[in-house]
Amino acid sequence: MTGDKAAAWIGANEGDAIGRLVDWLRIPSVSTDPAYKDDVRRAGQWAADHLRASGFDVEIRETGDPDGSGHPIVLATSEGSPEYEGPHVLFYGHYDVQPPDPVDLWRSPPFEPVIETDEHGRERIVARGACDDKGQVHGFLEAMRAWKETGGPVAGGMKITVLLEGEEESGSVNLERFVAQNKDTLGACDVCLISDTGMLGPGRPAITYGVRGLAYTELVLHASDQDLHSGAWGGKVPNPITELTKVLAQLWDADRRVTIPGFYDTVLPIEPAEREAWAKLGVDVADSLKSIGFGPEADVGETGYAFIEREWARPTAEINGIVGGYTGHGAKTVIPDHATAKVSFRLVADQDPETITESFFAWVRERTPAGCRWELIDHGGGHPATVGTDSPPLRAVRDALAKAAGTEPALIKTGGSIPIAGLLKRELGMDTIFAGFGLENDRVHSPNEKFDLDCWRLGARTHAMIPEALAAVRVSRS
Amino acid sequence: MTGDKAAAWIGANEGDAIGRLVDWLRIPSVSTDPAYKDDVRRAGQWAADHLRASGFDVEIRETGDPDGSGHPIVLATSEGSPEYEGPHVLFYGHYDVQPPDPVDLWRSPPFEPVIETDEHGRERIVARGACDDKGQVHGFLEAMRAWKETGGPVAGGMKITVLLEGEEESGSVNLERFVAQNKDTLGACDVCLISDTGMLGPGRPAITYGVRGLAYTELVLHASDQDLHSGAWGGKVPNPITELTKVLAQLWDADRRVTIPGFYDTVLPIEPAEREAWAKLGVDVADSLKSIGFGPEADVGETGYAFIEREWARPTAEINGIVGGYTGHGAKTVIPDHATAKVSFRLVADQDPETITESFFAWVRERTPAGCRWELIDHGGGHPATVGTDSPPLRAVRDALAKAAGTEPALIKTGGSIPIAGLLKRELGMDTIFAGFGLENDRVHSPNEKFDLDCWRLGARTHAMIPEALAAVRVSRS
Repeated sequence: MTGDKAAAWIGANEGDAIGRLVDWLRIPSVSTDPAYKDDVRRAGQWAADHLRASGFDVEIRETGDPDGSGHPIVLATSEGSPEYEGPHVLFYGHYDVQPPDPVDLWRSPPFEPVIETDEHGRERIVARGACDDKGQVHGFLEAMRAWKETGGPVAGGMKITVLLEGEEESGSVNLERFVAQNKDTLGACDVCLISDTGMLGPGRPAITYGVRGLAYTELVLHASDQDLHSGAWGGKVPNPITELTKVLAQLWDADRRVTIPGFYDTVLPIEPAEREAWAKLGVDVADSLKSIGFGPEADVGETGYAFIEREWARPTAEINGIVGGYTGHGAKTVIPDHATAKVSFRLVADQDPETITESFFAWVRERTPAGCRWELIDHGGGHPATVGTDSPPLRAVRDALAKAAGTEPALIKTGGSIPIAGLLKRELGMDTIFAGFGLENDRVHSPNEKFDLDCWRLGARTHAMIPEALAAVRVSRS
Repeated sequence: MTGDKAAAWIGANEGDAIGRLVDWLRIPSVSTDPAYKDDVRRAGQWAADHLRASGFDVEIRETGDPDGSGHPIVLATSEGSPEYEGPHVLFYGHYDVQPPDPVDLWRSPPFEPVIETDEHGRERIVARGACDDKGQVHGFLEAMRAWKETGGPVAGGMKITVLLEGEEESGSVNLERFVAQNKDTLGACDVCLISDTGMLGPGRPAITYGVRGLAYTELVLHASDQDLHSGAWGGKVPNPITELTKVLAQLWDADRRVTIPGFYDTVLPIEPAEREAWAKLGVDVADSLKSIGFGPEADVGETGYAFIEREWARPTAEINGIVGGYTGHGAKTVIPDHATAKVSFRLVADQDPETITESFFAWVRERTPAGCRWELIDHGGGHPATVGTDSPPLRAVRDALAKAAGTEPALIKTGGSIPIAGLLKRELGMDTIFAGFGLENDRVHSPNEKFDLDCWRLGARTHAMIPEALAAVRVSRS
């Protein structure tokens, strides 16, 4: 089998491959901050060059029409070998990263990758994007390179379209339009494959069959037209921090359920069989909490649901940021003129992000404090998505992963969001299979993000095996 | 009368005097931020030089023993003319200022004073500290200079001790010890005089007979030991912003009364006669609210108390600052490891700031969210203070002000805090008279702080008149 050859090549040339990943991670492709616009483009160009070297036809497509104000999408295709009768695969990944803030908590600069060995002797690469998602996408890229270098057909003969986005970490604001405008190209694909999720633990590979959706908002509460002295004005007029706090605190009831009317109306219940299967996975709650510095008493969330159920099957509301007034050193007796909060919702099937944002804004407006006014900002989001665990492409990918890992992968869900999965299902009826290699302690979105080299290895090997596994799958096209 | 001569000299030499004020305002004496430590000292030195030039004996006293880590106190004395039989006056002021943040909202740089003319043709000086308190203290300094320049006795013959502090805007943390260590010197004074309060409006001078106290705290709520991805962790573990918000929102009941047990136990009720007198002052609530951009619907506060009563006679709790998570541009789906709030209380007689802070911290500890821990910081504060409106020194100062203004001053209170007043009353049994010249729209503690030149003129003239008015007052010493 040439998949084995490709995998062997990866093992033999690992040093060079990791060197290439380091180069990619050095580019600070922070998509949410306009200051990094050129860097985001450079990171996309880097991936395009890599795919071209592996034999793909590659285009860089501007987004944010008509002015091209968005970050570009890298679109690469390979027609597949004549004998390939498997599904046309859409591989999706993103080359942008989260902001590195707070930068002072990094042990090494976020865009100067270092290879470390942890206390268990495991090697890992530390950098922003090491796992999410450059490190994971890079495993796929190196598998494609390996097929080329070992004389195999491009992409192992698969019929494949690769879509690498530069706005996943800033709400994928231009993706929906891109998909709508490229329905012919993308609609020709049969199944989407994404490597942006995690395993159950070291040595415990998994296929993810569901992701949560996201609705991300920002509230600014305006009060007076100037900052006020709290001596002259305290107790006389509304303080926007106080008022914002009082509104936000109403967002959860005593059972930590979200109080927005209709919020749970379209939430699908957990099936008893699913609940049972999850319980058998043996997730160690205390161990998981310990990994982030919590004791067992921090196992708090919506009443009536277990730890893993709250992540995989229940929606949640979170305040991701809040700021108002004086936040410097010492004391300043100010009542500020405004206060701001970023509030996001993780959603589960069949919640709709736009509906949730609208209901939240209506809920907020009903609670407008006397004398104040809201500025409500919609930062976008994405739909939740799930795929049946008996789908033939999912089983094929699971087989490839089993072969690469030497052990049977678990079937899990994740609380994270990958907006394109919901979008593809809704717009094109396409299912997504998530074969990801991250670990819970990878600190994605946090200082000192890392990716274990063992995880990188498994990802690259699995992607080398996938073309042959999928070649055996027959899809019925309408 | 030589007070008239001094006042005339002030009028004739106003340009030079304002030039000196500009020089003083250029020194960024922000006491709460260690970065400005040298500037604070320079501002104190500037005042010391001015007083020395007016004939005072001046010392610069270090604070923060034993290491001198505090900001210095300027102590100046004049023994008075042999024939002076009035009270020994303690003049208190402060030469430090609030931080200029948010700096980008200033129309001109905060430490580059400009003279503007407003839409009513009134001239004003714009700078941090223009009113609070350099501009006000400067009126006193120029009155002292005027007595000297017109050949009168030092300080108009008054027996006087001048104490200028450099830590008023950062909680006066070293003042209590200084007063305790200098009980002999300060205890020899009969009455304290302070120019750090306001008038009822333009052309409506006032004597203030009460100030609120202050207790200033900071709460840090710690949760996980790292920032978390809200996809992987949202709904599973405590979010410190959410939890902090839920705790803070409990600080007020539906009547906007503070819910800390015992908070109101020592609050003196408003006397019916006082309530009646205040109602007759003709404070225009709608106009006052309009001056800071509010409509009349922003007249919100503790149920059962009028606008001015809430400032002058009722305590309040305010969140002066809050911060947690991502506060930059766009979206970041983080659950941070901690969140912080600055919470202060304005207090009225006979509330004790230390007791209030202790009860607040106990209240906070009782509400510790599961899995989280508090870091509680006490930034100090000060006692409330009031003086009887029939006190002979108060009436003398009122007469001097009436003469300088050509109109009878009102008797008012203020919601602001001047920690030394409560301290002097408690430690030395000394009353304080507040003759201040600020206006409600001076934007003290805010961007574009200003002081009307008419207010400065009235302050300087009044201080020129005070020595002769007080000379006629006989105090009985124990």
